[in-house]
Amino acid sequence: MTDRPRIDALQYADWSEAVLDEMRAGGLDAVHATIAYHGGFREGVLALEAWHRRFADHPGRLLFARTAADIAAARDSGRIAVFLGAQNPSILEDDLGLVEVWRDLGLRFLQITYNAQSLLGSGHAEADDTGLTLMGREVVAEMNRTGIAIDLSHAGERTALDAIAASARPVAVTHANPRDWCPTDRNVSDAVIAALAETGGMLGVSLYPHHLAGGSDCTLDAFCRMVADVAGRHGTEMLGIGSDLCRGRPDEAVHWMRHGRWRRPATHDPPARFPDQPAWFRSSRDFPTIAAGLAATGFSGDEVAGIMGGNWARFIAVQFGGKP
Amino acid sequence: MTDRPRIDALQYADWSEAVLDEMRAGGLDAVHATIAYHGGFREGVLALEAWHRRFADHPGRLLFARTAADIAAARDSGRIAVFLGAQNPSILEDDLGLVEVWRDLGLRFLQITYNAQSLLGSGHAEADDTGLTLMGREVVAEMNRTGIAIDLSHAGERTALDAIAASARPVAVTHANPRDWCPTDRNVSDAVIAALAETGGMLGVSLYPHHLAGGSDCTLDAFCRMVADVAGRHGTEMLGIGSDLCRGRPDEAVHWMRHGRWRRPATHDPPARFPDQPAWFRSSRDFPTIAAGLAATGFSGDEVAGIMGGNWARFIAVQFGGKP
Repeated sequence: MTDRPRIDALQYADWSEAVLDEMRAGGLDAVHATIAYHGGFREGVLALEAWHRRFADHPGRLLFARTAADIAAARDSGRIAVFLGAQNPSILEDDLGLVEVWRDLGLRFLQITYNAQSLLGSGHAEADDTGLTLMGREVVAEMNRTGIAIDLSHAGERTALDAIAASARPVAVTHANPRDWCPTDRNVSDAVIAALAETGGMLGVSLYPHHLAGGSDCTLDAFCRMVADVAGRHGTEMLGIGSDLCRGRPDEAVHWMRHGRWRRPATHDPPARFPDQPAWFRSSRDFPTIAAGLAATGFSGDEVAGIMGGNWARFIAVQFGGKP
Repeated sequence: MTDRPRIDALQYADWSEAVLDEMRAGGLDAVHATIAYHGGFREGVLALEAWHRRFADHPGRLLFARTAADIAAARDSGRIAVFLGAQNPSILEDDLGLVEVWRDLGLRFLQITYNAQSLLGSGHAEADDTGLTLMGREVVAEMNRTGIAIDLSHAGERTALDAIAASARPVAVTHANPRDWCPTDRNVSDAVIAALAETGGMLGVSLYPHHLAGGSDCTLDAFCRMVADVAGRHGTEMLGIGSDLCRGRPDEAVHWMRHGRWRRPATHDPPARFPDQPAWFRSSRDFPTIAAGLAATGFSGDEVAGIMGGNWARFIAVQFGGKP
């Protein structure tokens, strides 16, 4: 059963015609797209409005996805199912009631933290990690109740473990790699990966150079051996792709991601810029290259199909209902 | 030199005519008034607009205070100088630039946290306290630069100590008592009081029953002996009053303070209500009773005048300029 959808669990592309062409060429059926890195409710709604216009402008190419059935609908019609998510709970402000509001507006993934402290927990960049806060525990329960998937990418270790333990539903790290393979706090420890695996959660392995051993020079073989190593320790079923591709975004976007409005960058900071993608994964066109690499590393056809999207489809069905 | 202003460093009164009569009767010259417990920037601005209307409605009774000179101006004209503050940095949202905006709008005090985790640090009610966050350090520096006084009431221990150490200006705990006198996390440790004293900071002792040893039954003598104990350990100059009076507010205000919109109260929670004030401090009319109690405990006339407002006037002059 290799006829499973191809899914990327994290992109922040610019969604131009050229980028949509790349996604089509790479065979993507569904993508989790980031609408917000910083900012409050109203700013999140403005980003959502831009997505409404985008869906209206590309009725033959994009589908506003709310359940797993939208993945099948997109495949059947040659479109891409787009699940919307936010990388920062700042869009909730200090208002628990906004969880259900965002669910009704179509948001399907929400990170507990971005790099810094949020009202819910600690990001990986903080010197210390409070774990889930009082409000964090309320929000996890409300996300479970309403059906927004918890994304622990960018979270600190303790916050991630707290959230996995507190959540009644499986949770995801949509875009990160094992920290013992590429030692950066943005990647995740084996303890977190194990906790995800034990609870039906998912890890989306990332193609962002800062998360890769060797950075932009990481080889396809090294990347696929990392995936095989995780699979050997924790099973193949928890694995998917979360490319973290930011195609078409200017370097100023890196500045926004890092600093938002909460920090004044030091004047001696080097200008923020996107790193070069590895030669074997420049854009969504290269998803078949990863599938081939995984097969060459020894994964079966069924396993490759799972990692390339089948496992995410299962997770999405569990979270949001529908048959992928 | 007992002719010094009488200042209350924290009230959340309803500012009705009756409450203003009480303040006048109690001889208050200046008050730090809370405009926000929860909510974002826009909500804080709405609260500020209500204050603009209040100042316009009571030109002969209230003065919108921005510097210490406004205390003298209020005394000379029989008015009350009102310094505005917020008990939650939620009004900054995730935007460092809003510090200067709030400064220009007239905000003069801002708490680093309320009871729960904020983007800047940990409130006393969190299970753990990771101290000032990355954004917290940025905001402390920006408050120092622009001239908003840092208020550490409601902060966790480590966050309070971090902020005192990080701030280039003296900081305040506007309304709390020593924790070793009344053991609740809302009160402050002797280590925090010592750090305040060593840096020119202030402690406003609170008359809110939950902060008093014995609660509503606390005696005036016990309260004044507590003040004398702090003075004996850390000097009289750091002491002032921060009554935390909420005159005229309905019990629903307690619910809002505690839960805001971030928490769904447990159904078995008892209805939130304001505790009864001690018999000797029912309202602002009773400030002379406290002055008399302090004198009876052995403070000199000069020391009493300092505690009843002179010390706050000095702090306010250091923070905001002007001659009180």
